[in-house]
Amino acid sequence: MSGGDLPSVVALGGGHGLSASLSALRQVTDQLTAVVTVADDGGSSGRLREEFGGLPPGDLRMALAALCGDDHNGRRWASVLQSRFRSEGPLDGHAVGNLLIEGVWQAISDPVLGLGLVGELVDARGRVLPASTEPLNIEADVLGLEVEFPHEVHVLRGQHMVASTNGWVQAIRLLPADPPACPQALTAIERADYIVLGPGSWFTSVLPHLLIPQLAAAIIASPAHKILTLNVTSGLETAGFSPSRHIELIAENAPGLRLNTVVADEAFAASDAALAQTCATLGADLVVDDVAMHDHTARHDRLRLAAVYREVMGGAEADLEM
Amino acid sequence: MSGGDLPSVVALGGGHGLSASLSALRQVTDQLTAVVTVADDGGSSGRLREEFGGLPPGDLRMALAALCGDDHNGRRWASVLQSRFRSEGPLDGHAVGNLLIEGVWQAISDPVLGLGLVGELVDARGRVLPASTEPLNIEADVLGLEVEFPHEVHVLRGQHMVASTNGWVQAIRLLPADPPACPQALTAIERADYIVLGPGSWFTSVLPHLLIPQLAAAIIASPAHKILTLNVTSGLETAGFSPSRHIELIAENAPGLRLNTVVADEAFAASDAALAQTCATLGADLVVDDVAMHDHTARHDRLRLAAVYREVMGGAEADLEM
Repeated sequence: MSGGDLPSVVALGGGHGLSASLSALRQVTDQLTAVVTVADDGGSSGRLREEFGGLPPGDLRMALAALCGDDHNGRRWASVLQSRFRSEGPLDGHAVGNLLIEGVWQAISDPVLGLGLVGELVDARGRVLPASTEPLNIEADVLGLEVEFPHEVHVLRGQHMVASTNGWVQAIRLLPADPPACPQALTAIERADYIVLGPGSWFTSVLPHLLIPQLAAAIIASPAHKILTLNVTSGLETAGFSPSRHIELIAENAPGLRLNTVVADEAFAASDAALAQTCATLGADLVVDDVAMHDHTARHDRLRLAAVYREVMGGAEADLEM
Repeated sequence: MSGGDLPSVVALGGGHGLSASLSALRQVTDQLTAVVTVADDGGSSGRLREEFGGLPPGDLRMALAALCGDDHNGRRWASVLQSRFRSEGPLDGHAVGNLLIEGVWQAISDPVLGLGLVGELVDARGRVLPASTEPLNIEADVLGLEVEFPHEVHVLRGQHMVASTNGWVQAIRLLPADPPACPQALTAIERADYIVLGPGSWFTSVLPHLLIPQLAAAIIASPAHKILTLNVTSGLETAGFSPSRHIELIAENAPGLRLNTVVADEAFAASDAALAQTCATLGADLVVDDVAMHDHTARHDRLRLAAVYREVMGGAEADLEM
């Protein structure tokens, strides 16, 4: 390991999926870096992106909230960051944390420095970095948008459109196709002991990182142990996809990527007899465990997931101040 | 004194004037409470007040910024709080700190608790309280608004209108006339070693506190040593008013108030031969010193003013972490 007693971990993703992995990983290490998608164009983030032209803050805010401590102040800050303005006026619907991040960016034009400042402010248990220093757009080829022409492919543009489509996503691309990766993210990946991909919306939160050429190259080249965490079920974007199909999408979008471990929930894994074999094609061991919440909400249980990460990382019980 | 080695000080005011007194006072004590006017209805504060109906955050934000430390982080936070969004969209012109305060109020509906949280966040060197827990309006009788009818009195409503009028303000009132004082402000005044009024826009930042009946009664009843700091010149609202006239306005709006010390800049004091005598009618000693910036900007020099406060408070050089 590259530093103290606890492993250095980089988690890549966005939205609720990244929030789940960070909530679990901060139980296991205090050397945690989140690398976050910056393609959101809907809701509060979309409006801020339109108004100011910079990175969309929403996924970054969710990552910061997930890294707030479990103590009274930490929970209070997470709640402030996540709360939304409610009014009949122009601020309605904006997440408070989005405006805080955007405001700091207005004062400090370096977005990475600004995120570091907000992280200090809320005493975040880890660092939050954008995957790219430029705002991105997602474009997807989608089948089945018109009932009369089920084989016709339509191009949808925008993360929000892609994430909410009823059609079947066939492929995604980034616009621009070769955006600059965040240099600090590249360094963190290079120095990581563990890299964690997923869970999350597969097309709009997990795969986009692999479509940033510099970021994909850094992940492939990194000596870190690489973990892919599958969703607990196939989600909206990947309805009906088997666990193996999720892994194949990773392989198709990042040729050359080898994985060490695939973490799957036992219920989802049970639906796919070929799963261990598919994992092996990328060099990965399959770890199957009960990692879902038991409330039928299709979410990971952060404590069960943390226990699995700790075992994969060969760690003893960490003595972390939560 | 009520606690440790340094005096407990309550400073009342708003806007740039309060910012000046707080910037000076935090050099002298670490037991500092700002009690801030909440009648602003212009600019960013006015828009937020209209959108959310709560207290206007602007003067509270300026007080928090003035209480940020002199270290790197403190200066950075002051700059973030004070910076403004610039866009062609709906956030244009909003102070970042106003949205942070408003956002915390959205998550934590108790405004005093919310301000405490923002204060912790930016590591403010003192506490910031609203004078009233309800948003206030200022109404003024103004002469000279129409050239043809120079003796006609017009009623102007709104702090912004009153503060920017070219007419002569004759009297001000609060709407509502008997707003609830902030209970924590009353307690701080009761326990203070020193109470500091002024400097600031006389009609819209200094006098309003004395028009909140509970607050005026608490100030009058407090055993604290009471200091009135005059502006370095007569300002826009009180153009042509002598130093003595400023003091008379205090006496007229707070019958029964006795003062211990009046602090005046030597240049402004030199214009008024009766000043010491006017001070004496309220029981106050006059302290004349060079407390202005030497750059012709009609501001107090926070370090010279701090030196005078320290002498008035009989203090040795304080060992404060700035």
